[in-house]
Order: sequence, then C-alpha cells, then structure tokens
Amino acid sequence: MKIYDAAIGPYPARVRIALAEKTMQSRVEFVPIDLQKGEHKTPEFLAKNYSGTLPVLELDDGTLIAECTAITQYLDTLDSAPVLTGKTPLEQGLIHMMNKRAELELLDAISIYFHHATPGLGPHVELYQNAEWGMYQRDKALRGMRYFDGILRGQPFVAGDSFSMADITVIAGMIFAGLLHVPVPAECDALVAWHAKMQERPSVKNRMTMSEKATTPA
Amino acid sequence: MKIYDAAIGPYPARVRIALAEKTMQSRVEFVPIDLQKGEHKTPEFLAKNYSGTLPVLELDDGTLIAECTAITQYLDTLDSAPVLTGKTPLEQGLIHMMNKRAELELLDAISIYFHHATPGLGPHVELYQNAEWGMYQRDKALRGMRYFDGILRGQPFVAGDSFSMADITVIAGMIFAGLLHVPVPAECDALVAWHAKMQERPSVKNRMTMSEKATTPA
Repeated sequence: MKIYDAAIGPYPARVRIALAEKTMQSRVEFVPIDLQKGEHKTPEFLAKNYSGTLPVLELDDGTLIAECTAITQYLDTLDSAPVLTGKTPLEQGLIHMMNKRAELELLDAISIYFHHATPGLGPHVELYQNAEWGMYQRDKALRGMRYFDGILRGQPFVAGDSFSMADITVIAGMIFAGLLHVPVPAECDALVAWHAKMQERPSVKNRMTMSEKATTPA
Repeated sequence: MKIYDAAIGPYPARVRIALAEKTMQSRVEFVPIDLQKGEHKTPEFLAKNYSGTLPVLELDDGTLIAECTAITQYLDTLDSAPVLTGKTPLEQGLIHMMNKRAELELLDAISIYFHHATPGLGPHVELYQNAEWGMYQRDKALRGMRYFDGILRGQPFVAGDSFSMADITVIAGMIFAGLLHVPVPAECDALVAWHAKMQERPSVKNRMTMSEKATTPA
C-alpha cells in the first residue's frame, strides 16, 4: 500500500498515528506530496482525490481511499488489534460521533482558520480566502477545546475508556493549533493533561520520522 | 430508541432513509424539534448535542448518539440486513470515503449556503452570517453535482454496485438543493437519472410521513 501524505500535516498525522497504533507502518510506502508547492491541487492529484486533500491511501491494485475516517475504518477492519473504531455497535456509534465532533468543532475549524485567516500555504495555493470566516472558525475551535476539556474531566479518552480514532482526531487538532500558535484556553487543564499523555505514545511522538523508517515497503 | 429530528430536514432525512432501508422504523419514536423556533440551539438541546444539529439518537438508557454517519454506523452494526456501511474492509473504506465526500462537496456546502447566503432559519436562529462564504459554497456544491454525475456515469450507485450510506448522503444533498431551488447543472444527466431512481425507493418517497406511522414505539 502507498500513502500520499506530508510528514508535517495534521491530517496525514491521523493516519500515521493509526498505522503506528496498529503496528502496520512497515506495510505502507509513504509518498511525499509538497503542500507548499500545491502538489495536492494539481490535475494529476485531483484525479486521485477530488477534494485535493491529504492523505490518500492507494492499494496495490490502484484503488484509492481518501478521507482520514475512511482510511482508518479500512485499516481497522483489515487488521483487528488494537481496534480504533470500536467493537460493539455502541462503541462504534460513540467513536464515530466524537470523531466527527472533533473534526467539526476543532480540527476542521483550525484548518479553515489556517487557510483563510493566515497566509496558509501561500498565495499560489490559497486562491480564495475569507478572513472573517477564518477568524470565526478560530473562535469555534477555542470553544471546541473547552468542550473537549469538559469531556476529558469525566473520562480518560475522548470517546470513553479506550484510546480510539476520536482521540487521534483531537490530537490532530491540537497539533494544528500548536503549529499556528493558537493558545489553549488557560482553564483547559484536563485537555492539556490528556494531550501531554497522548504525546508520550510512540505513535504520536514518532509520527514525523515514520516515513524514514519505512524504507522497505511490503 | 428516540430520534430528535424534523421531518423536513435533509440531515434528519439521512437517518429516516437508513431506518426505512433497514425496516427499523417501528423501533424508533420520533421527537419533533422545531428548527424555525431554534429549538436545536437551546441550552437543553445543546446538552444533548454540543453541535446543535439534528438528528440525535437517544437510546433507552439515555445514551446520546449525534451525527448522521455515527447514527447510521450504530444502526447498521446493530442490525445486519441490508448493510449500508459495507461488509468488507474495502467496501467500508470506499463507502466512508464517498459518504464524507458527499458531505464536503455537496450536502454540507448546500447547508452552508442556506445558513449564510439565504435568510436560513430566520434572524433569531442565524445569529452570524457570511454571505460571501455561503455563495462560495453554493458554487462548490454545483461542482460537486458535476463530480457525482461523473461517478454515476460509471457505476449504478455512489460507492459502487450497491446502495449505501453514501447514496443517502447524496440524496440528502439533492433534497436540500431542491428545497432551495438550486438548479442541477443541465449536463448532469446521470445524476438526474440516478436521483429519479432513488426517489422511487419507499425509504426516500415516504420519509416525511414516517413519524406519523411510528405511533407505537418499541
């Protein structure tokens, strides 16, 4: 399998972390896409993923799977331990809910802020910007951090008692916020403590150097 | 189980259609939420779903599952036929990809247009609007229709050879576009033909009257 990604990207990080949690790194070849050059917006890349986003998984037969949730679901169903998307119907429902909420209220909000209210990837990539919308989404992300802080006061992980895809999505949001120096609200102790614990996980700590180790793709 | 929803809403339609496809309607009690009155933005409702959106599934023990994809995943795992989210890893990956793409490129884009570049649910609900962003998303949705038209020229359903959650999400996008009189681009023959066929499905045709029939919740 190949993954088109960028080591620094918060969305690519979601799949890198999932792969490492499942110890599937060695089964994947990483193909770097240069975001700053807009390689993800070329006609060739858009033919792989209409939405022009990273990461994209390419199977050995050429089948393409884009979108982090879809890739994680595929990898998780392919290989059974540890399960990141839930075992029971209830776990699956709650994990998918919290994963989507983490996108809507934190990660995607920070991404819109980046692409619309900062220089983003530069003027040759950011062909349309709406700064007011970007700032509105920044505020939304800060509210989102407060929401997840409240959740993490009551339970050890974002979707309950176990690490899941939903934690990975909040981690990606925190990575993106960190890259942009968006400060975590001072009162968010539980979120900060959870994030510190997450950063100790090898899957999170070593995510950027993963591709260097994957020199012998399966 | 209860579902907080609104019969007219395109997002609630996603879960109504999924329930009908799985013939699970009689297991659910529908609780109407008045969108025009902003009942989905009250503190009581936000405690049920932080994002303030419909639908929300409430299990008999009070557990809440929001987000259409999460609810569909829950219902699909609970009851096995017909499967809407895929049986094999590949089917699951492709269905989740196309479902997310249908949100991003069509349904959510139309929703943003509605809430930002039209009166939406009225000034007491639409407390912030960004009309330029709304119009940008309308254009995106029209491009999305052309994309799905291209897909449906090559295969009978959005994610391949079988009806799935991804079809339901495109149907919801077309319902929302229809409500707002957003015209389908003239060249989208395959999308229009597919949509006509989808509207013949009892799950789609009878979705609005489903709650009237569900008078004896299980």
